[in-house]
Amino acid sequence: MKNTLGNNLTVTLFGESHGDSIGAVIDGITPGLTVDNEFIEKMLFLRRPHGKISTPRSEADPYKIVSGVFGGKTTGTPICIIIPNGDTHSKDYEKTRYLARPSHADYTANCKYHGFEDYRGGGHFSGRITAPLVAVGGILIPALEKKGIKIGTHIKRCGNVSDRDFADLTEDIENLNNTDFAVLDRNVSAEMTEEIMQARTVGDSVGGILETAVIGLPCGVGEPWFDTVESLLSHALFSIPAVKGVEFGAGFGFGSMRGSSANDAFRIKDGKIITETNNSGGINGGITNGMPVIFRTAFRPTPTISKPQNTVDISKNENAVLNARGRHDPCIVHRARVVQDSVTAIVLADMLIGRYGTDWLGNK
Amino acid sequence: MKNTLGNNLTVTLFGESHGDSIGAVIDGITPGLTVDNEFIEKMLFLRRPHGKISTPRSEADPYKIVSGVFGGKTTGTPICIIIPNGDTHSKDYEKTRYLARPSHADYTANCKYHGFEDYRGGGHFSGRITAPLVAVGGILIPALEKKGIKIGTHIKRCGNVSDRDFADLTEDIENLNNTDFAVLDRNVSAEMTEEIMQARTVGDSVGGILETAVIGLPCGVGEPWFDTVESLLSHALFSIPAVKGVEFGAGFGFGSMRGSSANDAFRIKDGKIITETNNSGGINGGITNGMPVIFRTAFRPTPTISKPQNTVDISKNENAVLNARGRHDPCIVHRARVVQDSVTAIVLADMLIGRYGTDWLGNK
Amino acid sequence: MKNTLGNNLTVTLFGESHGDSIGAVIDGITPGLTVDNEFIEKMLFLRRPHGKISTPRSEADPYKIVSGVFGGKTTGTPICIIIPNGDTHSKDYEKTRYLARPSHADYTANCKYHGFEDYRGGGHFSGRITAPLVAVGGILIPALEKKGIKIGTHIKRCGNVSDRDFADLTEDIENLNNTDFAVLDRNVSAEMTEEIMQARTVGDSVGGILETAVIGLPCGVGEPWFDTVESLLSHALFSIPAVKGVEFGAGFGFGSMRGSSANDAFRIKDGKIITETNNSGGINGGITNGMPVIFRTAFRPTPTISKPQNTVDISKNENAVLNARGRHDPCIVHRARVVQDSVTAIVLADMLIGRYGTDWLGNK
Amino acid sequence: MKNTLGNNLTVTLFGESHGDSIGAVIDGITPGLTVDNEFIEKMLFLRRPHGKISTPRSEADPYKIVSGVFGGKTTGTPICIIIPNGDTHSKDYEKTRYLARPSHADYTANCKYHGFEDYRGGGHFSGRITAPLVAVGGILIPALEKKGIKIGTHIKRCGNVSDRDFADLTEDIENLNNTDFAVLDRNVSAEMTEEIMQARTVGDSVGGILETAVIGLPCGVGEPWFDTVESLLSHALFSIPAVKGVEFGAGFGFGSMRGSSANDAFRIKDGKIITETNNSGGINGGITNGMPVIFRTAFRPTPTISKPQNTVDISKNENAVLNARGRHDPCIVHRARVVQDSVTAIVLADMLIGRYGTDWLGNK
Repeated sequence: MKNTLGNNLTVTLFGESHGDSIGAVIDGITPGLTVDNEFIEKMLFLRRPHGKISTPRSEADPYKIVSGVFGGKTTGTPICIIIPNGDTHSKDYEKTRYLARPSHADYTANCKYHGFEDYRGGGHFSGRITAPLVAVGGILIPALEKKGIKIGTHIKRCGNVSDRDFADLTEDIENLNNTDFAVLDRNVSAEMTEEIMQARTVGDSVGGILETAVIGLPCGVGEPWFDTVESLLSHALFSIPAVKGVEFGAGFGFGSMRGSSANDAFRIKDGKIITETNNSGGINGGITNGMPVIFRTAFRPTPTISKPQNTVDISKNENAVLNARGRHDPCIVHRARVVQDSVTAIVLADMLIGRYGTDWLGNK
Repeated sequence: MKNTLGNNLTVTLFGESHGDSIGAVIDGITPGLTVDNEFIEKMLFLRRPHGKISTPRSEADPYKIVSGVFGGKTTGTPICIIIPNGDTHSKDYEKTRYLARPSHADYTANCKYHGFEDYRGGGHFSGRITAPLVAVGGILIPALEKKGIKIGTHIKRCGNVSDRDFADLTEDIENLNNTDFAVLDRNVSAEMTEEIMQARTVGDSVGGILETAVIGLPCGVGEPWFDTVESLLSHALFSIPAVKGVEFGAGFGFGSMRGSSANDAFRIKDGKIITETNNSGGINGGITNGMPVIFRTAFRPTPTISKPQNTVDISKNENAVLNARGRHDPCIVHRARVVQDSVTAIVLADMLIGRYGTDWLGNK
Repeated sequence: MKNTLGNNLTVTLFGESHGDSIGAVIDGITPGLTVDNEFIEKMLFLRRPHGKISTPRSEADPYKIVSGVFGGKTTGTPICIIIPNGDTHSKDYEKTRYLARPSHADYTANCKYHGFEDYRGGGHFSGRITAPLVAVGGILIPALEKKGIKIGTHIKRCGNVSDRDFADLTEDIENLNNTDFAVLDRNVSAEMTEEIMQARTVGDSVGGILETAVIGLPCGVGEPWFDTVESLLSHALFSIPAVKGVEFGAGFGFGSMRGSSANDAFRIKDGKIITETNNSGGINGGITNGMPVIFRTAFRPTPTISKPQNTVDISKNENAVLNARGRHDPCIVHRARVVQDSVTAIVLADMLIGRYGTDWLGNK
Repeated sequence: MKNTLGNNLTVTLFGESHGDSIGAVIDGITPGLTVDNEFIEKMLFLRRPHGKISTPRSEADPYKIVSGVFGGKTTGTPICIIIPNGDTHSKDYEKTRYLARPSHADYTANCKYHGFEDYRGGGHFSGRITAPLVAVGGILIPALEKKGIKIGTHIKRCGNVSDRDFADLTEDIENLNNTDFAVLDRNVSAEMTEEIMQARTVGDSVGGILETAVIGLPCGVGEPWFDTVESLLSHALFSIPAVKGVEFGAGFGFGSMRGSSANDAFRIKDGKIITETNNSGGINGGITNGMPVIFRTAFRPTPTISKPQNTVDISKNENAVLNARGRHDPCIVHRARVVQDSVTAIVLADMLIGRYGTDWLGNK
């Protein structure tokens, strides 16, 4: 289904970085959900570049909801969110149009769209298209919270600096959702910023790892084959630009573990079934087990860097050197966390609506 | 779409481990593809347990293609593959029916299906259901090969033993597809077997990592958002039982890299555009760039072990101890590689058919 | 999605008329539904040819449910129903293989599948493939009835003989479901049989119109655009072989009506909202309004007739004359009514599960 | 998929009659198609009310393509078309908010959306939402024409006035596409206008029948089960507001025909296979046979009429009388024909792209 995500609740993205507008259409949403514009703006603010560690572009996101919301509530019919494009420097890109930026989508877009693609600023591949995705998250996250489902994401790693692990999830998630730079250990904040600034100084960029926890999910959501919780989440997460790895629970660590230490023993606690450990990341057989869902995503370093790079001129089919001029981020991990929260909210809302019906998300 | 995978070419799985039969339906397949039963049987043989390092169950898979193949060729209408269940010891499971096996799907199945699930031998969640998936791979892999697209998977890691990295892909893939135990370095074969036997001796199990390479894919396949190559492959890979992590190219390694070393410079070689390195794993912006597609999957250790484990009795909602009696594998990674090959073939065939039309796979 | 119908509850058909087996896979079904084999057999019996007005083929349908049912109840995982093919006279078809039967799918199948199609007895296009569809109906219809939703279909017209209109729907539906030849007015039964026999005598066939009523549907099911109730029902109905028209409520009669007589006035009756007339066939704006859903389907006469017919030999690209030898039905309308009931049940179950969640159909 | 139509090429509709904007997103479109704004405007003009026989609303449709088109060509990424709402008299609707208009969607929307729906002017159910659908048609129709596929629709019947049947299709289609009031026999134009004016004078409305012909389709497109050409077209056609019947070829006329006169004999003509008659409407076994595809749709009379009507007040659950004040059309059939053309173009483009690949529509 190409640029559409979801089965029962769907999100379709459109727009190019330097086109007229970008946006999203949400369909299948529960009627009667409150649309909190202040919260959406907060989410968009967190995604926007700010401070020294981000691109100097001023990306105000004056979004407009043109359908599907009436009297401050979702109607249940499709919501279209539009964000007009403003401060674009399209000329920056024209000069280097045929010099495919290494590890960017310029060359693959050309193969796929035969040169008809809008090449300016990454076009439809631009990270900017995540802004409407975040606006969608801004509608769904509060609705999930009302049902007791909370999502929090922190920067587990940025270059060579690591954050501490999740501990008390309720507290950690609350703290994360009240901070601009999403780390659990306040002390690593300066270290990470320093890591990013160092890369920036030398015209380079850094990668990182985001870790997300979701609490409050009911047990029994997901499918045994193909539409497992891991499948649906990874499907969505791998479309966040720069994500190249997704792991749940102990993830790649399982590779060198034994079953006896990897297995999560079930126990009764306060009359309810829990597991003593959570190596499974809250999912068994593709289905939620009622424990927190935990996963991590690996982000490649931003491919656009200022250092000269070897590449090819695709119009001449010959070797060339690229000296990138477009403004860019030395790191996008700190901005991507609200994208990850939003994508997670979309997938979970879709699964829950599929399982319990259209109106469930709005029920008291 | 639950137990169905794919958009244009789809695969639907059915069956329970101890039911009458298991099977798959393939729809949207190109007409006129040769169905090579010898190759399908070889694939099924590689998935079956054999030797000391596997479960002593004798899982002959006398598959039967009941539709969609006529005169040895695909007709283009749905192919149904049926594998009757044989050697089942259902009584083994009845005794421990309500003792949820840790990290298995017993408890989550019960939450989802309210006790109506077939609990015997893992039911629909059983790894046995991968047999029809492998049979599907047995039809698609030769068709892809005729188009120059080759898939090879090796055991990158099993417990604490690692295989070497891919080197000459054409040669490596050919060797892998002519060996029973899929490692690139013949010397690690004994070490891995030893690792598995040690776990088995103490009633334990080991996890591992599989790495897959695909060569010969055209450039320009995949979608910018949501249906990226990574999204579609991970969606499918995460439904292989026990997979808890998927990464492409440098994957989680990107987290501590800088852009200048992570980026894959484009170059002209023999008149064609290639990249000097392949940290991107053959995918930029969600779309194939013509370089080999490379990915790894993390497998948790088999959850069924002989050691006593803490669990709960879900019929009584009280703590209990499980002494598993069912036959099981101390490791499934070496068997899972044909599952991974098959799932990869399904996803790629689906994408290629979507991109180039129904008949492309059969064109000369 | 080709040979798959549905969004949340899906049905996939496979099989060829003269292949090994035909069948269906149902996915997304509610767990815990009772599977009543006696009812399924009754449904299959009604679809089978019997008596002088049908083909002399003996089509026993010894179906087998090979997955998804455990202890007589649906498990919630995919149900595969297999019906092996028995009494086939494939040689009948070989002689006339390249003589495309007029208004049959022989020629179009050849265009689509390039000659790889199983041409014997209509292959995958055969009306025989409706048998597994009816078996699926045999599972869903009783489940819908437990929720108060009842479906009844009568032969509104067969050749030049018409049945009376629906009157007391509850009574009419009950009567229809207790009769072999589905007419409301017992007197037209002999007339219709005579009509069919006359056509048979001269080696010809007759068409007809089926009319279906569904009572007990809740108000508020369906979508405003694209997935309207009419859209989803017609999508399914138009894949019943020979159906060439579908209309709801007053249908084509609306073409010469005025709004003042076409509109259905709302009224309060016993505290509930009803409409005085039901020209809309129970659907407004694509959504159920709580009144009975009423629709009619037009069936073309069976294309296989004994009279000589002009046609072409597709192997030689030249004109030819076909003298059909295969056994055939002079009329299929009386057999198709359980197919129509089944297809209706599938579409409604899918919509209801999408609206109210997976478990709704099984709730008390 | 609710408000989304299509599998490979998809169209998603959004917007409410009196909201900020309405629009559509097209995804999966071939890159490099020329976007001819003049043609789109002509299509939108034909849909708009004009002259005495339509609503006096001035519905200028200043559409804006905000994405997916670059340098006058489709890029291949999603196209979003926005049409802002202008001349709305929302107050007209507030007075009668709770008086459900007979045969309108007011009551069913209330059941489905629990009162959160935008009730003004029909909201998301309004015929106005067909404007973006027509704009989509305005992009696809010229692309299909370049491939030799032409679509034409005429008013077969309006109230009690009938147009002649299709004759020379090439000529008829060309003439239809160059006329404002789509009839084949110029003489019935005045009669139909008179029919509409008479209804208008007495505050009433009239229904009608549209007939569409498509020429130039290749043979072999469509699926044997569920996604037959009839299924996919009817699915789309039944979501045009007011459509209550769809028939192909001889349609409901088949009900009283015999096979010998209903069958379309194949013949060789100029070396190609054709049929002597076209009762099948160009489709056999759900698949195109290369002959013109012919179908008819039945439109109910516009439900909004000026005459007083019995209804209920849904806020009080009591009987009431509605004196409609909103402006309305005495007939919409003449405006709906471009909607029917557009919907047809969408379905065909989707099927052709699925069959022949993404780029086919743009190939020379």
